[in-house]
Amino acid sequence: MAPHPLDCLSVEEIKTVVSLVKKHHGSKTLHFKTVNNVEPPKALLVPYLEAVRAGKTPITPPRVGYANYYVLNDKRASEAWIDLNNGTITNVAEAKPGTHPPIDHLEAEGALKVIFADPQFKAAIKKCGLEDKMHTVACDGWMYACQDDAVFPRYLQGLMYARDPETNHPESNIYAYPIPFVPVYDVLNKQFVRIDWCATGGDEDDVDGFNYDTRKEEFDCLEHCVANEYHPSLQKSFRTDLKPYNVVQPEGPSFTCEGNTVSWQKWKFIVGFTTREGMVIHDVTYDGRNVFHRLSMSEMAVPYADPRPPLHRKMAFDFGDCGGGNCANELSLGCDCLGTIKYFDGNIVDPNGKPIAKKNVICMHEQDDGILWKHTNYRTGAPAIVRRRILVLQTILTVANYEYIFAWHFSLDGSIDHEIRATGIVSTQAIDAGKTSKWGVVVSPGALAASHQHIFCLRIDPAIDGYNNTAMVAETKTYPTDPETNPNGNAFSLEYTPFETSGFTDWDVTKNRYINIVNENKINPISGRKVGYKLGHLTTPLLLASEGSHHRSRAAFATHGLWVTKHRDQEFYAGGVWTNQSFNEVDGVRDAAARNENVRDDDIVVWHSFGLTHYPRVEDFPVMPSEIMKVHLSPVDFFTANPAIDVPPSTQKFNRSVEVLESKCCNKL
Amino acid sequence: MAPHPLDCLSVEEIKTVVSLVKKHHGSKTLHFKTVNNVEPPKALLVPYLEAVRAGKTPITPPRVGYANYYVLNDKRASEAWIDLNNGTITNVAEAKPGTHPPIDHLEAEGALKVIFADPQFKAAIKKCGLEDKMHTVACDGWMYACQDDAVFPRYLQGLMYARDPETNHPESNIYAYPIPFVPVYDVLNKQFVRIDWCATGGDEDDVDGFNYDTRKEEFDCLEHCVANEYHPSLQKSFRTDLKPYNVVQPEGPSFTCEGNTVSWQKWKFIVGFTTREGMVIHDVTYDGRNVFHRLSMSEMAVPYADPRPPLHRKMAFDFGDCGGGNCANELSLGCDCLGTIKYFDGNIVDPNGKPIAKKNVICMHEQDDGILWKHTNYRTGAPAIVRRRILVLQTILTVANYEYIFAWHFSLDGSIDHEIRATGIVSTQAIDAGKTSKWGVVVSPGALAASHQHIFCLRIDPAIDGYNNTAMVAETKTYPTDPETNPNGNAFSLEYTPFETSGFTDWDVTKNRYINIVNENKINPISGRKVGYKLGHLTTPLLLASEGSHHRSRAAFATHGLWVTKHRDQEFYAGGVWTNQSFNEVDGVRDAAARNENVRDDDIVVWHSFGLTHYPRVEDFPVMPSEIMKVHLSPVDFFTANPAIDVPPSTQKFNRSVEVLESKCCNKL
Repeated sequence: MAPHPLDCLSVEEIKTVVSLVKKHHGSKTLHFKTVNNVEPPKALLVPYLEAVRAGKTPITPPRVGYANYYVLNDKRASEAWIDLNNGTITNVAEAKPGTHPPIDHLEAEGALKVIFADPQFKAAIKKCGLEDKMHTVACDGWMYACQDDAVFPRYLQGLMYARDPETNHPESNIYAYPIPFVPVYDVLNKQFVRIDWCATGGDEDDVDGFNYDTRKEEFDCLEHCVANEYHPSLQKSFRTDLKPYNVVQPEGPSFTCEGNTVSWQKWKFIVGFTTREGMVIHDVTYDGRNVFHRLSMSEMAVPYADPRPPLHRKMAFDFGDCGGGNCANELSLGCDCLGTIKYFDGNIVDPNGKPIAKKNVICMHEQDDGILWKHTNYRTGAPAIVRRRILVLQTILTVANYEYIFAWHFSLDGSIDHEIRATGIVSTQAIDAGKTSKWGVVVSPGALAASHQHIFCLRIDPAIDGYNNTAMVAETKTYPTDPETNPNGNAFSLEYTPFETSGFTDWDVTKNRYINIVNENKINPISGRKVGYKLGHLTTPLLLASEGSHHRSRAAFATHGLWVTKHRDQEFYAGGVWTNQSFNEVDGVRDAAARNENVRDDDIVVWHSFGLTHYPRVEDFPVMPSEIMKVHLSPVDFFTANPAIDVPPSTQKFNRSVEVLESKCCNKL
Repeated sequence: MAPHPLDCLSVEEIKTVVSLVKKHHGSKTLHFKTVNNVEPPKALLVPYLEAVRAGKTPITPPRVGYANYYVLNDKRASEAWIDLNNGTITNVAEAKPGTHPPIDHLEAEGALKVIFADPQFKAAIKKCGLEDKMHTVACDGWMYACQDDAVFPRYLQGLMYARDPETNHPESNIYAYPIPFVPVYDVLNKQFVRIDWCATGGDEDDVDGFNYDTRKEEFDCLEHCVANEYHPSLQKSFRTDLKPYNVVQPEGPSFTCEGNTVSWQKWKFIVGFTTREGMVIHDVTYDGRNVFHRLSMSEMAVPYADPRPPLHRKMAFDFGDCGGGNCANELSLGCDCLGTIKYFDGNIVDPNGKPIAKKNVICMHEQDDGILWKHTNYRTGAPAIVRRRILVLQTILTVANYEYIFAWHFSLDGSIDHEIRATGIVSTQAIDAGKTSKWGVVVSPGALAASHQHIFCLRIDPAIDGYNNTAMVAETKTYPTDPETNPNGNAFSLEYTPFETSGFTDWDVTKNRYINIVNENKINPISGRKVGYKLGHLTTPLLLASEGSHHRSRAAFATHGLWVTKHRDQEFYAGGVWTNQSFNEVDGVRDAAARNENVRDDDIVVWHSFGLTHYPRVEDFPVMPSEIMKVHLSPVDFFTANPAIDVPPSTQKFNRSVEVLESKCCNKL
């Protein structure tokens, strides 16, 4: 059976791509980064989707594979495009100068071997009093961000930690034992570069604190650290009074699937998975009407606040530098979801070109979400009540110390939420005993968790009742008291201004500014207004790095809350295609917006940047309770009434709740 | 058994209060509004609570009852205080001049009888072409807000609607048939006052549109309206593909109760219920440590945006004008909650002084809330995962057309959320066929839903590790790029400024301003910082009415996002004690803040105003899908680690999920 044009490449297709690329380069060793399908141009994809929807025979767009990789000893990455229908390479090119593909585990492991063997590294370990504890020492390979020395070589930096020396348990939380130096490694030349020492004196340091290594000869750098374990196997005991809580669906789930096409409660959409973005939702319709063409998490920038070199270099683009699909967890039953679960798989490639068939990278299940609507007629006392059921599609990324849980929630009321939970372990750095620092918080003795931000960019390709849409800026208009027009001063109204050309806006709470994405050609017959979906945005601080900083030029997408651009094929990445060690955001949303193209009643893309400015708490250690954020997309005059009016009422016969009687545990009044 | 000092009055106690008050007034007829217990002064209550907590014999504060009521034909309400230990009245007083107690159903019903019998009303009905349809006509008694004519008499205004004339079904949605006039009624003199005609011409009206009644002689005002039903008994059919979803707790719930004292997962608190506030949470501790003394929804203002008289007078204080306890639904099993439910009851009084023992006004149950924390050690591939269980306490108010669902969520991670869901039916007014209006949206033919706001004020009486606390204003400090101090421009930090004297602040997203409530005398041993709880506030527009308007002076609490005051006994109501037909907010949070008292390291109260500016959508009719808001209170360095670290890991054995296999419904890749 032919794959759906939005299916990720099958294992066989990945093998074909890899073998063609290898053949092209003859006997050279290749280091693969990405092997993915190329999403068909919208001009071919939309007719395909519409034909399927209409029950007609679709014209299947050509199946195109894509690879990026290093040819051994090349300074630049290469890219190749493969015609999978004919099994031929159509194009091979070097990536733009100054760009670097994402980092990967194989490179990081290679780095560790070289670093750990280097005499300078060994001397640093000795100086830190860890010579006898080398078996406990661990190193997280990090992207070398903020290329402050403006060198072209591709670098990795290592954040150094150790396992609890008492146990050296493989699950020991290394982030409780930070070691105060950073080895730097040249990925291309596979060479150790240098050791950078970290400032550990807290508020007593000035920025020159990185001259730390001159302070003393030898010392026990982890003397004041203590074990601080999160892993169940290292807990002394657990609470025993949390009773089981099971979700039972005796008649099975309410959804059905055909391939990756999901149908649930008038919603229909296609589940996609890419190396770069992880989970993608395509072709969302409600009761046969187009709503969104494509929904994806486009990028995330994670800059840290500590200005003391070398840790100012902690700045990750978790999608561009690592890959959402690469980092996706394989989820397991009874852990990551509760209830009746359907899993989706996804295929990526390992650096050697071997396909990795990842199991269960996305899970889907229904969830009860409280009350959807209720009204009691006070004249009769009769309540009417409907519960809110949602369909959850969830994926979880592990990016070294940190975890992100991304979920799309489809609701009975026609709304779609994107929920993010930030969890995992906060990144720590060494701090001397008894010291504190304004750049972070001591979360465990000797472990400073620096303040940082996570600025996400959600990419929304709308199709509100069709593919030509307009982003309306909605603002509240207030009126002065006036005897003729506003005699009692209570007036206010909602005013819309369309985005005419591509650009950006920021939120203004005083004006209640928000965005409504409308189809100007479709009028709601009840209200006489244009059909639309409102973006329930998050009003959060954006990038805090100073004007003119590398952070701002590299993550321009994170400097405004909302961008509107005209659609271009393959323009999926807010921070640009190549983020790793970038100097500047290239071909990202800033550049797309700067094209100054028409976005009124056109094929537009809406990009929402928002985030979490994370001042860690002691409670965020040894593992962080989920910090939850939610973006809300809700219909505004898209329907002619509450679309959940035909959901059966909530009844005890259906829900089977149980009352706790007073004799069991409680006294009533 | 003696009642707990925080228990609401028992039925017997209400009878005692009523009988003493009646006796005091001899043969006069009384109309009761409130009979409630008086919460003991904090100086007596706190030692009581602390003694109980310490397992000592507490000194029970005197039990004091309170009543407010009309003595028939009196212009002002009266108040009485009753010593319930001795069964004596200690004080009776007239309420302050110019104040009015809340409205009630008996008054509204009395109003209808008079109104419906009045010749002017009958003439208006005739003019609207409804003479033959009087059996379908309904009137909602509303508070007469914005006393623009500055009269003292206590008025009610009626919003006029009709049931579907085809069915005249008792559950017919009257808000689909708005009638364009407002009868005004004098409550005290039980007299019809006048008919006010409403503007119905949409954007073609100017403010003088209220001269509508001169336009034509007789017309069918509901000719263009259509039935738009929400009630299940009036639906033609329901969707059939939503499968049952049950929550099963085979070992029962994890909570225990003793009276109204609840224990769950190291949390302990007391559930209270008052006539004015409805659900109140008292004496919240975690693992024996004080966290919050009292949590309550203090007030809500609901101003409407249409300036055309008389509908500018739509402005409700749902707590002060109606009473959260009075409006609380009696909840039923299998409808309002899902799972294993414990209910709490509450007692109020009817206007005749008869106790009403309301059943199930608060429900409590556990809920799975997704993933609390997860980390996968990428070195070993071992995931560790704990699910987020919450304990939900929920109450639901019906205020005429509208519903509010208020819930406190206690979490395993030491956080507490307050969730609000706004649902029910939007208030409508008549609009001519084919017209639209900038003051609202046509949600059904002939029915305009005016724009409005719901500004809530959450009252937080903190007790962070003790009763003397400080509200710290947290702001992000950014730094210019500077070769010495911020060479790469990435620096930012968190700065705290304490509130020294009572006052207010507003949110500033650019500064990431928020509030951390700390105990300056308790230092976290890990971080060296003060223990605290952060207010995860909602950054929403506040009151939009113009400067100098009645709305602003009446709802001053709704003009700033956060207030900090010094605690005073009985000072519970942000909008003042007497809101109905008020001219001005008296003894509300503005006045408390204006006392300019010390609030540093003192017994403080934090008040958070936030809300929903509701531009209705067609989807909000015939009943509105819940609009969800959440305020988050989370520990900041209150604990020495993530308090949920000892929660057992999430396992399939415990959770018993079910996988949907591909053979059943899906194809895998």
